[in-house]
Amino acid sequence: HQSKLSNVGNSIFSVMSTLANTHNAMNLAQGFPDFKSDQKLIDAVSNAMNSGYNQYAPMQGHLGLRHAISKKYELLYNSSYNPENEITVTAGATQAIFTIISAFIRPNDEVIIFKPAYDCYQPAIELNGGKSIAIQLKAPNYTIDWNTVAQSINSNTKMIIVNTPHNPSGTVLSKADMLKLQELTNETDIVVLSDEVYEHIIFDGEQHQSVCRFKNLKERSFITASFGKTFHNTGWKIGYSCAPKTLMDIFRSVHQFNVFSVHHPSQKGLSDYMEEPNHYLNLPEFYQEKRNLFLELIKDSRFKFTPSKGTYFQVLDYSGITLEHDVDFAKRLTIEHGIASIPLSVFNDNNLDEHVLRFCFAKTNDTLKKAAELLNSI
Amino acid sequence: HQSKLSNVGNSIFSVMSTLANTHNAMNLAQGFPDFKSDQKLIDAVSNAMNSGYNQYAPMQGHLGLRHAISKKYELLYNSSYNPENEITVTAGATQAIFTIISAFIRPNDEVIIFKPAYDCYQPAIELNGGKSIAIQLKAPNYTIDWNTVAQSINSNTKMIIVNTPHNPSGTVLSKADMLKLQELTNETDIVVLSDEVYEHIIFDGEQHQSVCRFKNLKERSFITASFGKTFHNTGWKIGYSCAPKTLMDIFRSVHQFNVFSVHHPSQKGLSDYMEEPNHYLNLPEFYQEKRNLFLELIKDSRFKFTPSKGTYFQVLDYSGITLEHDVDFAKRLTIEHGIASIPLSVFNDNNLDEHVLRFCFAKTNDTLKKAAELLNSI
Ligand SMILES: CSCCC(=O)C(=O)O
Ligand SMILES: CSCCC(=O)C(=O)O
Repeated sequence: HQSKLSNVGNSIFSVMSTLANTHNAMNLAQGFPDFKSDQKLIDAVSNAMNSGYNQYAPMQGHLGLRHAISKKYELLYNSSYNPENEITVTAGATQAIFTIISAFIRPNDEVIIFKPAYDCYQPAIELNGGKSIAIQLKAPNYTIDWNTVAQSINSNTKMIIVNTPHNPSGTVLSKADMLKLQELTNETDIVVLSDEVYEHIIFDGEQHQSVCRFKNLKERSFITASFGKTFHNTGWKIGYSCAPKTLMDIFRSVHQFNVFSVHHPSQKGLSDYMEEPNHYLNLPEFYQEKRNLFLELIKDSRFKFTPSKGTYFQVLDYSGITLEHDVDFAKRLTIEHGIASIPLSVFNDNNLDEHVLRFCFAKTNDTLKKAAELLNSI
Repeated sequence: HQSKLSNVGNSIFSVMSTLANTHNAMNLAQGFPDFKSDQKLIDAVSNAMNSGYNQYAPMQGHLGLRHAISKKYELLYNSSYNPENEITVTAGATQAIFTIISAFIRPNDEVIIFKPAYDCYQPAIELNGGKSIAIQLKAPNYTIDWNTVAQSINSNTKMIIVNTPHNPSGTVLSKADMLKLQELTNETDIVVLSDEVYEHIIFDGEQHQSVCRFKNLKERSFITASFGKTFHNTGWKIGYSCAPKTLMDIFRSVHQFNVFSVHHPSQKGLSDYMEEPNHYLNLPEFYQEKRNLFLELIKDSRFKFTPSKGTYFQVLDYSGITLEHDVDFAKRLTIEHGIASIPLSVFNDNNLDEHVLRFCFAKTNDTLKKAAELLNSI
């Protein structure tokens, strides 16, 4: 038997995490916190199990959690999603993304993606017979040339996938970017998938440009989001998607046969925990301090950088050290220097190598200090 | 936008559960226990959260849990699956089934399914451009005519889906059935998907006929299984799939981009809990008592039945009461008599109506007594 996917290897996250474990290296590769989440949230999930939230959640998600999500969009973006039929809780943002693509992409449909791109978009498109149209963005600013996008749109274009704050580059889209996207898709049938899993991790007073803030864009868009990133529990795999009802109906028609529903006690616990908006409002400050600490500590290293504007990732340019291929250098750093990162070329079109590695700074200050020591010694 | 699915309605489980809630009826429709699972298991998951199992599990699943699963197959079926590369933990059996079908079914591939069939197979096949070849089995025995199967196999046949113990009918496949399946698929490229989520719920001393007990069948087969059904936590949505490495590699190539990984603390908790095999070995006796109680209580009712041989479902023939369409009768029972069930026609080819309803007996004895009173009064 042959896989329907042209590239059947393990994801770079599995590869680098395994390598880090094998060589007892610090793991700044795969994006996850090395500190514990709020005990209150853990207790809320335990309480949910003990008070009987152990059978199927509704297919759409626990109603209280959908209400809490809806309230968040009112509060932050003055935008409304109806908890009944415009919000669905998913088994992580990845499952939301896979489901959106499976629900909409037919053989020969084209999907515009921007590279470097998180690695789950392309396989889902390919699996459904679609074609990824990759537009490569370049370090260090990774800005989108909207003329190139305009030229890439044709009658086969079914979807455009954007991601802000952007993993892996740590850049963010501006209001002008979103207005351009809105203008280019206006009066078309194009669906926009806006991967906003890092919406609450944005720095230097920037405002997150959610698609829901742009009326005509919102109409055609799915948002995908992640509680793992926001509440420091990436292993719980709870996320959600929002979209106008007509789009959400189609999403749910597939979602119900992909996972049917999602871990119920976690949903109930998250619903209780979200009653206090500070639990997500304080996130920019929390992570900005970590970014600042990390960058301050490595400012005299041989790595060059532009400070991350969002996400918990910082990309470092190592061209002053070596011109090795980034995959080789990332592996060597892990094996010889005890620190794992993610090479950016694996996310690039044709594996373009700009000599850039991605480091995750969702780590205790102690971990960041140790990591900086290693990086300074290179 | 149009859904890729021809039938975009909510699943019958959502429909009947919602109707039951609205009318304050007993819910014997959707299959889930109304009693609490073992406190030890709940505590094991709380402990896992408190001791830090909150970040990404490995994509393949928590290693301890994969070992526990492997041990179970040794113990029960004297069959071996390598935890490293032949077992993957999933977000429920439904996600495993969706992933298998997405990974293997290409446009125009044919998949043989037996009706009545659980409702998630067909949409997944259709979504991938495949064609379901439905073979209708008839009440009350739902036996497979293997000559019909032989005639349905052709060069487009890519997969056969079997399910034993069988939801919704409560029948089981015999050793002779499995040998026939093995014979018919031998030396073909056909993949067998064996949905064994009720493997531990089988009655009257019958042996579960897992595909893994038949050497040539095992080679081409995926097993899908569910912890929700076994440990009374359907809302946790943790299941798994087993298959020989060459098949599992292809499964994982899709799984990693569908959900990536699964709720980590539950996996760790389940792994600890499974160290005691009695936690699943005592299940046949537990549910057989419930089946016996339920049937004893309704033996003088106007419903006719053949005792369920497996699963926690009992089908009841109501043709002695009315010849209404089963969907109408199921709704009327819910609204007027306060008891919800699942009409079998929704699982049948062309909605064949044999005047049969499915009732879930994974309920406290008290619930079963109240349900029987209602059924006896009809
Ligand atoms: C699914 S593992 C990858 C986690 C992540 O979001 C990242 O490291 O980019
Ligand atoms: C996914 S909800 C349906 C539960 C179930 O397995 C059934 O009732 O048959």
